Amino acid sequence: MPVIHIDSNKLSRKQKRELVKVITKVSSEIMKLPENAITIIIREVEAEDVGLGGQLLCDRDL
Amino acid sequence: MPVIHIDSNKLSRKQKRELVKVITKVSSEIMKLPENAITIIIREVEAEDVGLGGQLLCDRDL
Amino acid sequence: MPVIHIDSNKLSRKQKRELVKVITKVSSEIMKLPENAITIIIREVEAEDVGLGGQLLCDRDL
Amino acid sequence: MPVIHIDSNKLSRKQKRELVKVITKVSSEIMKLPENAITIIIREVEAEDVGLGGQLLCDRDL
Amino acid sequence: MPVIHIDSNKLSRKQKRELVKVITKVSSEIMKLPENAITIIIREVEAEDVGLGGQLLCDRDL
Amino acid sequence: MPVIHIDSNKLSRKQKRELVKVITKVSSEIMKLPENAITIIIREVEAEDVGLGGQLLCDRDL
Repeated sequence: MPVIHIDSNKLSRKQKRELVKVITKVSSEIMKLPENAITIIIREVEAEDVGLGGQLLCDRDL
Repeated sequence: MPVIHIDSNKLSRKQKRELVKVITKVSSEIMKLPENAITIIIREVEAEDVGLGGQLLCDRDL
Repeated sequence: MPVIHIDSNKLSRKQKRELVKVITKVSSEIMKLPENAITIIIREVEAEDVGLGGQLLCDRDL
Repeated sequence: MPVIHIDSNKLSRKQKRELVKVITKVSSEIMKLPENAITIIIREVEAEDVGLGGQLLCDRDL
Repeated sequence: MPVIHIDSNKLSRKQKRELVKVITKVSSEIMKLPENAITIIIREVEAEDVGLGGQLLCDRDL
Repeated sequence: MPVIHIDSNKLSRKQKRELVKVITKVSSEIMKLPENAITIIIREVEAEDVGLGGQLLCDRDL
């Protein structure tokens, strides 16, 4: 513990590496816990599986 | 906020569109919140990854 | 299965009853599954525990 | 209810079958609930999507 | 990793201790991972926050 | 979307404010998404509800 779940759109491995590094660092500092106590799980979600304001993300022209 | 996670079996894009539209509408009405405040995330789960009553769903002859 | 998690602000029992009834009904119709296959879990989240756009919800004057 | 989510590394179907069977059995005994009340959902997570101590699991030489 | 989330009804500390001990043990054996790799998080859910078959659990006479 | 769930031990409002601010900022930069697209939900978990290595956190002398 702590465990952080990140539901996000598609990310590159580089982005994931960066996210895990930085979020672990800032969480460790703010929570005053060692970095190795922190687990992060990333779940990439397809645009077809996300609804915002009643509409599928894939149906919105971004 | 609110955030709604739906773990479900395989769905077509049409079913997802319908689910997101209707669940957002009824949630917005009942919670008295604007539709664009509501995020829905659908996670399709394989029958091999679901256990009901101690048995994998894929092992059950439905 | 399906399992639906709803993270939401504080709700009355009446609202919860209504949400569960309607979301189960529409999900059952769209997913073509019996209503008793559907589990809904509501998690009320305090405004102090929600971040939107980098700000705690309790810090925003709604 | 109860609903148990298992985020884990890649598992064989045999392991999933075993996990679901045993975890349902022990949970049913300890919680004093019938086995068919218990739903288990397994989510296999790639090593690239797990951060431990600020490092992606795929970057660690295990 | 692995991380196991258990949404359940109210449990005593003794039941939680027992659940964590046994589920960690069997998961470790089946997944062939050390026990200290396994994190379990228990979330007790009120009957008023659970919907089964379109009805709040608190509205059902068990 | 993205939605970030943080299961953590007890935190002060100041820590939550800081976590939400910093995690939103770094996530926005790395994911190249606007800050207002990011939702964070914090769930404080009692030591009695966390199992690490088969033991309840509250049973461990920290």
